[in-house]
Amino acid sequence: METIMTSERYERGRQMLSQIDANQPRRLNESLKDIAPEFADLTVEFPFGDIYSRPGLDLKTRQICTVAALTALGNAAPQLKGHVGNALNVGWTPKEIVEVMMQMAVYAGFPAALNALFIAKEVFDERNLSAVD
Amino acid sequence: METIMTSERYERGRQMLSQIDANQPRRLNESLKDIAPEFADLTVEFPFGDIYSRPGLDLKTRQICTVAALTALGNAAPQLKGHVGNALNVGWTPKEIVEVMMQMAVYAGFPAALNALFIAKEVFDERNLSAVD
Amino acid sequence: METIMTSERYERGRQMLSQIDANQPRRLNESLKDIAPEFADLTVEFPFGDIYSRPGLDLKTRQICTVAALTALGNAAPQLKGHVGNALNVGWTPKEIVEVMMQMAVYAGFPAALNALFIAKEVFDERNLSAVD
Amino acid sequence: METIMTSERYERGRQMLSQIDANQPRRLNESLKDIAPEFADLTVEFPFGDIYSRPGLDLKTRQICTVAALTALGNAAPQLKGHVGNALNVGWTPKEIVEVMMQMAVYAGFPAALNALFIAKEVFDERNLSAVD
Amino acid sequence: METIMTSERYERGRQMLSQIDANQPRRLNESLKDIAPEFADLTVEFPFGDIYSRPGLDLKTRQICTVAALTALGNAAPQLKGHVGNALNVGWTPKEIVEVMMQMAVYAGFPAALNALFIAKEVFDERNLSAVD
Amino acid sequence: METIMTSERYERGRQMLSQIDANQPRRLNESLKDIAPEFADLTVEFPFGDIYSRPGLDLKTRQICTVAALTALGNAAPQLKGHVGNALNVGWTPKEIVEVMMQMAVYAGFPAALNALFIAKEVFDERNLSAVD
Repeated sequence: METIMTSERYERGRQMLSQIDANQPRRLNESLKDIAPEFADLTVEFPFGDIYSRPGLDLKTRQICTVAALTALGNAAPQLKGHVGNALNVGWTPKEIVEVMMQMAVYAGFPAALNALFIAKEVFDERNLSAVD
Repeated sequence: METIMTSERYERGRQMLSQIDANQPRRLNESLKDIAPEFADLTVEFPFGDIYSRPGLDLKTRQICTVAALTALGNAAPQLKGHVGNALNVGWTPKEIVEVMMQMAVYAGFPAALNALFIAKEVFDERNLSAVD
Repeated sequence: METIMTSERYERGRQMLSQIDANQPRRLNESLKDIAPEFADLTVEFPFGDIYSRPGLDLKTRQICTVAALTALGNAAPQLKGHVGNALNVGWTPKEIVEVMMQMAVYAGFPAALNALFIAKEVFDERNLSAVD
Repeated sequence: METIMTSERYERGRQMLSQIDANQPRRLNESLKDIAPEFADLTVEFPFGDIYSRPGLDLKTRQICTVAALTALGNAAPQLKGHVGNALNVGWTPKEIVEVMMQMAVYAGFPAALNALFIAKEVFDERNLSAVD
Repeated sequence: METIMTSERYERGRQMLSQIDANQPRRLNESLKDIAPEFADLTVEFPFGDIYSRPGLDLKTRQICTVAALTALGNAAPQLKGHVGNALNVGWTPKEIVEVMMQMAVYAGFPAALNALFIAKEVFDERNLSAVD
Repeated sequence: METIMTSERYERGRQMLSQIDANQPRRLNESLKDIAPEFADLTVEFPFGDIYSRPGLDLKTRQICTVAALTALGNAAPQLKGHVGNALNVGWTPKEIVEVMMQMAVYAGFPAALNALFIAKEVFDERNLSAVD
């Protein structure tokens, strides 16, 4: 029973992720398989199966809020990089992502904003995108 | 010259704030007049005159990103309370604000989300609003 | 189906909490019912149903680790207060809890340790316990 | 032997504190005597006996750096309040303390700066001091 | 007198460290000798001579609490790496360390937990250990 | 009008920076030109044009306060590195900078202090300076 239950939540999370970054479950499994394989499942289940899939807020808004929060927290570079990609995937432009990061200078200081901008630049470069006209 | 320049930035910030919370400049002046009156001006000028008034991102998105970031940071209760009010003022519903705060449990932990929800409740209560159907 | 699944995770979390603080689910429901009732469920399901109930680590160790982390983070006073109570409930002595908080001065600074100690004192006083011989 | 050693470090810390706030050891003892009396000693010994009493930096500079750091960290209100008083005691003016706090908006965001300013105002009010001409 | 005193505290810390990682005093001296040699002494004296050596809590519990706190803080990667090694040295298994890190997702968010897990993996790999059955 | 205004603030910031690190505006422009060129201007205007150039506190004190704050925050390594250089430029000695970083162990923990010291060492090495007699 347990197995089936878990896979239903996982399935809901996986489907949510298919709209954001369909390869993330596979990449999570790969990176965690030798250290904490079940945490790969939990990282699909709780954030995406329990939270992002809730009906009260659209995915695009959820995604930019995550970029804002990770920029402000300033200690989650790999995750911010992933979510900049996700934000592009759900329809935000490089320019809009840059605006959010600049805005975080107000709430978390200039270093947090600057370090996030350099992370965004890596993602934009990898996709041959530009935030500048 | 300086005075005129400053007041143009201030004026741009004040106009931006008139769409969010027209009383904030007055309240800032009041709360800071005995300690750092010029910081009241800077708090209008940089966040609102320099950042929020930039054309690359709409005000409604900016405001929810601020709620997300202050929820995640978890050490700015008075400012979060103000920005929950601002988010309502620019068109977010209580339910959407609650969704963003719940989402922050993923990135900043459950305590940050819970403490933000209790702050949101104070604002909704003051306005006789409900996040629950 | 969904409802049944959710309640199995919830049930596992509730049973785990019955060993820590059997009233927490009720208190969570009470405090969140007007703002985010489903977050009360998630706060039982993920932390306690998904994490604390995992077999790889005993409950007593989990509980002191939470006290250590909330002391170090320093911005979750209500949750730290709750978890000091939980730590007592699962068998830690006031003295041991105080030792962990003092230790956090090394990793998060003296203010974090001091503020945690004052929170612990509130809990010990409510229970007529003492950390001092 | 141990006792004597400890009291020499404690004594050095106590003498350092006599230049900053001679009553702090007594207040620390009072506030911690029922929860962690030995942490009162450690709070004199390490910060003041081991660090502040080092010869490589003058006390006045040390004290303003502490105000800057606690403002930026933003989660140590009681300690910041104490160190604003200390900063006044070693010769900083209310205006200079306010300048440092405003500056922290650059590195830790406006909420951190604003919350620190309101704490400073409490101290200045208690001493009938003003940061405004 | 001073020298002897210091060396007694240092000696107590060094003996405590001999149960955790006997090479740490030497490595600390090496890494700090060109920048802050006396801080190497203080890093033995206060954390290990003053805190870890206190009788009220066993070393094994102290060590897992440190892993929990550094995971939650999320901005001390080199120190977390060292303390994962220490936790292994005092008898925690890779699996237990992984459980604590996963648990921190509840209090500090998924990015903090994930980044800690990747650090733990480095340590386990260096020692040919596995957290997975 | 707007253009001229902005350039007056920018000019004031640039002149302030000429006393600290005359190349910073050029480096900021270079590093941000492909991602957020206007943020390079804002990073001169607000921190240096609006804040550092205020008359109430001398530049040397401002600079050491920034080193203290970035050490304590612990998540802004590139900016801390830059400001260690700035602190040297305005007259602080390597030894004094090291003292401030060591002091931050009291307020933000040993990991924050240690990681800052290793950053300082990089700067001192690049300039063939030593903090040790």
